[in-house]
Amino acid sequence: MEVYLDNSATTRVFPQVAELMHEIMLDGYGNPSSLHKKGMEAEGYLRTAKETFAKLLKVAEKELFFTSGGTESDNLALIGAAMANSRQGRHLITTQVEHPAILQTMKHLEEKGFQVTYLPVDRSGRIRIEDLAKSLRPDTILVSMMHTNNEVGAVMPIAEAGALIKRFNPRILFHVDAVQGFGKARILPKRMNIDMLSVSGHKIHGPKGVGLLYVAEKTKLMPIVYGGGQQMGVRSGTENVPGIAGMAKAANLLYADLENELERLYELKSYFMDGVTKIDNVVINGIPENPNGLEAAIRNTAPHIVSVSFAGVRSEVLLHALEEKGIYVSAGSACSAHKPQPSATLRAMKVEPALLESTLRFSFSVFTTKEEIDYTLDALYGTIPLLRRFTRH
Amino acid sequence: MEVYLDNSATTRVFPQVAELMHEIMLDGYGNPSSLHKKGMEAEGYLRTAKETFAKLLKVAEKELFFTSGGTESDNLALIGAAMANSRQGRHLITTQVEHPAILQTMKHLEEKGFQVTYLPVDRSGRIRIEDLAKSLRPDTILVSMMHTNNEVGAVMPIAEAGALIKRFNPRILFHVDAVQGFGKARILPKRMNIDMLSVSGHKIHGPKGVGLLYVAEKTKLMPIVYGGGQQMGVRSGTENVPGIAGMAKAANLLYADLENELERLYELKSYFMDGVTKIDNVVINGIPENPNGLEAAIRNTAPHIVSVSFAGVRSEVLLHALEEKGIYVSAGSACSAHKPQPSATLRAMKVEPALLESTLRFSFSVFTTKEEIDYTLDALYGTIPLLRRFTRH
Repeated sequence: MEVYLDNSATTRVFPQVAELMHEIMLDGYGNPSSLHKKGMEAEGYLRTAKETFAKLLKVAEKELFFTSGGTESDNLALIGAAMANSRQGRHLITTQVEHPAILQTMKHLEEKGFQVTYLPVDRSGRIRIEDLAKSLRPDTILVSMMHTNNEVGAVMPIAEAGALIKRFNPRILFHVDAVQGFGKARILPKRMNIDMLSVSGHKIHGPKGVGLLYVAEKTKLMPIVYGGGQQMGVRSGTENVPGIAGMAKAANLLYADLENELERLYELKSYFMDGVTKIDNVVINGIPENPNGLEAAIRNTAPHIVSVSFAGVRSEVLLHALEEKGIYVSAGSACSAHKPQPSATLRAMKVEPALLESTLRFSFSVFTTKEEIDYTLDALYGTIPLLRRFTRH
Repeated sequence: MEVYLDNSATTRVFPQVAELMHEIMLDGYGNPSSLHKKGMEAEGYLRTAKETFAKLLKVAEKELFFTSGGTESDNLALIGAAMANSRQGRHLITTQVEHPAILQTMKHLEEKGFQVTYLPVDRSGRIRIEDLAKSLRPDTILVSMMHTNNEVGAVMPIAEAGALIKRFNPRILFHVDAVQGFGKARILPKRMNIDMLSVSGHKIHGPKGVGLLYVAEKTKLMPIVYGGGQQMGVRSGTENVPGIAGMAKAANLLYADLENELERLYELKSYFMDGVTKIDNVVINGIPENPNGLEAAIRNTAPHIVSVSFAGVRSEVLLHALEEKGIYVSAGSACSAHKPQPSATLRAMKVEPALLESTLRFSFSVFTTKEEIDYTLDALYGTIPLLRRFTRH
């Protein structure tokens, strides 16, 4: 049996998406900038993709820009907004648990003379809204906060943060990295006071190499890539038509039955957590306290990510033991190219140092079934005691 | 009949490439940064792609970086090198006929305090090597020159320029935009003193949204996109595995019989030029003088691009007249998103002002046949006299 539980790293492309892209590559291959029929046809695919995202996000088509992926979307939002608004101030705010596409870009902006506040998080991986309130300054120009944490599935209080920021100063821009959140929750930028939103194709069963950046009208943004002036000059370069069409198709498929699918994923998550906590000395990370109990608490997290610390087991060893059984998971996140270093997110959450190297991430998708979860639990039941015995020697 | 002669704008994807990408999207969809089998499999595709380009360009695999396309490759080369080497000097050199991905990026660098010399070209669209010699200064850090002009097919004296630059100062970096040249000529960076070379997937029957930047070892380069540290930190972001594999496959297919294919294209070009000049008052742009005659002169240009000025005919009108017959061509270049403005390239070449708005680009590919050229010539023979009569009224 092959069980792919590394969907936060990347997802299998929907067959319908791969089919559509195949077709466009062979028949709809025109350049959208060409003035003839082949060009118009290609432009039509772009327009349809924009219509899709405008509808799903309830925003205007002209507020949507296509990029090469989540990383570029994040870079364009941060560097683009910082550079375009630096006269107004040079203070930026983010969190300690962002994806490297945000943290490394912030570091770059610090070198360019910007000041960055990194908000701490609580033990469940969420920022405290009071911390955000205290960090806002007259020279703050941008707050960037992830919707869903990629390592533990914590969901940030985006709507509250948005409201707070705009109450303090409506000119402060609010960027949300929704690479893990889009398609796993209803995100409505206008209602949540979000000025910029990053989405990635390959996290939603779309293709790699394509992303989206929503930019609210009138937001001042400098490009980070210059050229032929495509996409109103915000992002030059021939548009990746098949990739963009594929990403939009994937979003449409995900949203077709979103509420039911999210419910199914929450049930799977709950079922898996229940099963995995039958093992001794296991801690699940990223579940907040909730007066209404565990089930309610789980609904405050992402439906598809479970971070588990197995005391006394090295995560890489367990990862490869599971791999031998055809189960693919991640130690921390796959997003930091091969660097096996203690997770900054887990440290910020004050996870016990002994557990930092004993944590695995299981991440589900629309393709994940209950049978696969049962198979995974059985594998864990069989493997963990063995590995623990091994570790003791 | 459908005749696509806009291959300098973009090309039809090879069926084998689309097939391979389809397969990878469904089965080889792992994240190369993941530590399990699915990740290793994905990484294998990247390695194979690097091996392909290393062999074709005769460079080392570690000197190759994947980007989202020609525009990003050009931006990374120019901004990355300028920023990383600004202590050594702030003078850059390019030509007046570059693609907007170079010209607009140079403009951005001028705003950042760099000085840029734009070399003029002769009537055939090529720089004069003496002009380059005169423009080199002690504070010059970078020369960027296209291999093949996208509008007229002029081929720059790259090897001579490389030798001259390095003789003047080996520390000056030489970047070559080979978006139109790769696959249409043998380009060997090491032999031509090229430090950086840009290639685009969708110009060589590969996918849109993917490109390559060759960077010679020890070249100092700053990233323009920050994140998870993929590709040795030069270009962060999950690699576009299907796109990269597809681009490499396309390159392999093109190179399998390159010499014969180039010969075939030169014959087509020569045949088309012969046919089109049977029409009165037609000028072909971008063909240099050659003491050995026209055939020899044609071999000094790109095999796939013919720029023709039809006196007394508006290019857009002719473009749409041909479109009605299923023939797709371009007025100038498609790379400047819909902006119908007089071509800077043609002006730099001192093309008669009256002809600037009467010029079409016909660009061929491996799929172009002699039958298609005959059909196109017949269409021109039938259309041009009619349009000219119409214009006179």
